[in-house]
Amino acid sequence: MSGPRYTPLVESLPSTVPFVGPETQERARGRPFRARIGANESVFGPSPRAIEAMAAAAREVWKYCDPENHDLKAALAAHHGISPDNIVVGEGIDGLLGYVARMLVDKETSVATSLGAYPTFNYHVAGYGGRLVTVPYVDDHEDPESLLALAASEQAPLIYFANPDNPMGTWHDAAAVQAMIEAVPDATLLVLDEAYIEFAPEGTAPPIDAEDPRVIRFRTFSKAHGMAGARIGYGIAERNLALAFNKVRNHFGVNRMAQAGALAALADGAWLEHVRGSVAEACEGIAAIARANGLTPLATATNFVTIDCGRDQAYARAVLDGLIARDIFVRMPFVAPQNRCIRVTAGTADDLAILSEALPDVLASLA
Amino acid sequence: MSGPRYTPLVESLPSTVPFVGPETQERARGRPFRARIGANESVFGPSPRAIEAMAAAAREVWKYCDPENHDLKAALAAHHGISPDNIVVGEGIDGLLGYVARMLVDKETSVATSLGAYPTFNYHVAGYGGRLVTVPYVDDHEDPESLLALAASEQAPLIYFANPDNPMGTWHDAAAVQAMIEAVPDATLLVLDEAYIEFAPEGTAPPIDAEDPRVIRFRTFSKAHGMAGARIGYGIAERNLALAFNKVRNHFGVNRMAQAGALAALADGAWLEHVRGSVAEACEGIAAIARANGLTPLATATNFVTIDCGRDQAYARAVLDGLIARDIFVRMPFVAPQNRCIRVTAGTADDLAILSEALPDVLASLA
Repeated sequence: MSGPRYTPLVESLPSTVPFVGPETQERARGRPFRARIGANESVFGPSPRAIEAMAAAAREVWKYCDPENHDLKAALAAHHGISPDNIVVGEGIDGLLGYVARMLVDKETSVATSLGAYPTFNYHVAGYGGRLVTVPYVDDHEDPESLLALAASEQAPLIYFANPDNPMGTWHDAAAVQAMIEAVPDATLLVLDEAYIEFAPEGTAPPIDAEDPRVIRFRTFSKAHGMAGARIGYGIAERNLALAFNKVRNHFGVNRMAQAGALAALADGAWLEHVRGSVAEACEGIAAIARANGLTPLATATNFVTIDCGRDQAYARAVLDGLIARDIFVRMPFVAPQNRCIRVTAGTADDLAILSEALPDVLASLA
Repeated sequence: MSGPRYTPLVESLPSTVPFVGPETQERARGRPFRARIGANESVFGPSPRAIEAMAAAAREVWKYCDPENHDLKAALAAHHGISPDNIVVGEGIDGLLGYVARMLVDKETSVATSLGAYPTFNYHVAGYGGRLVTVPYVDDHEDPESLLALAASEQAPLIYFANPDNPMGTWHDAAAVQAMIEAVPDATLLVLDEAYIEFAPEGTAPPIDAEDPRVIRFRTFSKAHGMAGARIGYGIAERNLALAFNKVRNHFGVNRMAQAGALAALADGAWLEHVRGSVAEACEGIAAIARANGLTPLATATNFVTIDCGRDQAYARAVLDGLIARDIFVRMPFVAPQNRCIRVTAGTADDLAILSEALPDVLASLA
């Protein structure tokens, strides 16, 4: 009657979770948030055509999904001007990052990332026994040169780099990213997380060279397409790498409603434009609220604004706690010096009005 | 410019897939199936209330899911009379089997199963480097005693046992299953896959003892609840084991629409009764069609009928191919001697009419 015989690796893993969800906080608080602007979800919602497609697919959900994701891959291939053989569809970028970690990370494998970058990637690497090696952000930007140097010295098979970055919202231009790709060490794969790319200015994403074996680029329907809860994203990779996911992926793992919704969302360029405009307006509004309160918004290429609260982590944490106490769900970076900031997602006009009313009150209470 | 540096294990894995989907076959054939009765999906569909809940959730799908699955776990706990701490919700049983394999299977770990049992479980075990050891079916039933003996002699940390069984549809009664649980070797975990349990006669499932550390029981919304494409299932396990999934699971991986649909489906007992009745009627119909054509249907406790074609694999394969050529999607067991059979899912009256018309023609063509 002893417990299960876990592998030594799993035995050693903590039961911590990368993120606590807002629902968990609501249950602990005993009341709901008035503004849900903490997880970089798209409050502007999915395309009405995507909603319609998902609702229609609900009737057909007795069928397993097409495990090849054929129709969506064909549409994505046409959209990007590449072959479907260069695309892998999965359960959000989170799911795909897990598969990449599983394929390349063994016990003690070094993996290069930035100190304070995406925790879920770190969770996956640690989950396969990898050893994270990090470089600091430079001026609130991820630093391609030091990432490359670290990967080379550590012989890391994997580098994680997000452009635009989360949690800072900063970005590098296409030329800088292309130069980074060109300089990837031999036998190293660059994971280029472009979850927020649809919000970035023209000239942020380098042209797609789908057969380049040095990089896998991840895109998602969770952000600009407003389908975070549908769990669907994709990778663009050299065809042998795209095919290798078949060794480890959960073949029937993508939700059938998500497939239908993604297809419809991809076809609705007008909605994407609408969302982009609304997000830009909201980010300007958040920045204006920050400035009006003596705080410093960072420039952003995403659907969130990272706000420098001007002091240390303790102060930023107090600002965050004050907003949460006033029923506004926001988050903050985990690591110094980025954790002098809080991170606010583009919200509706109502969300911004609530923020605008609460923030002076919070700051006054801390003065 | 060399390729990614895969782990030795992943390098060694084949890129084969456990199942080819019906959509893939339709594309290869250039025309759709008339009857989709091959994947044990519920052609009777999900509860209308679940459809409504999923359609409503489509509007809210810009939000990530609640990663704790709190509301569904609470409802399942009430349904089974257990604590939510004994429940883990995941991306279908397939996803949960993957997590179990990851937690318990290391390179060269022996895992006990029946020769010809669920291929996706085998896929996961092989994917973590495990070594499958098998015992034969006995009289088309999985054989608890030999599974237990094998697990003991191999010091396997994991035994897979499905009750009712897929692909044969046979079952053991609750007393036999409880006796199996009682006899699980020390430091071995029994995976009791009860995906089809809602179709089984009273007295097939032993009472749930959620704190028993020797067994984890898997249930799903894919079969009787008609939500295969939603990807949502759950495990019932001793609380420390249930908690350990937090070490490896994709925390935000369950679809928000699936959560809403599952909650509604669980509350619609009348629909479940309707489906049970329709499935029983369809299975009787399939059995009658088989008998009318000189074939032998096996008794079933599932939503499918396994039909003994009376000769060898080649003959069963020819019958299967004949049905597929007549636009009927069916499958067959993979391994001898079970592969003398084909497997037909409970279908609508239309599906059965198509089968009834096609089968004599197929058999005549083979005579």
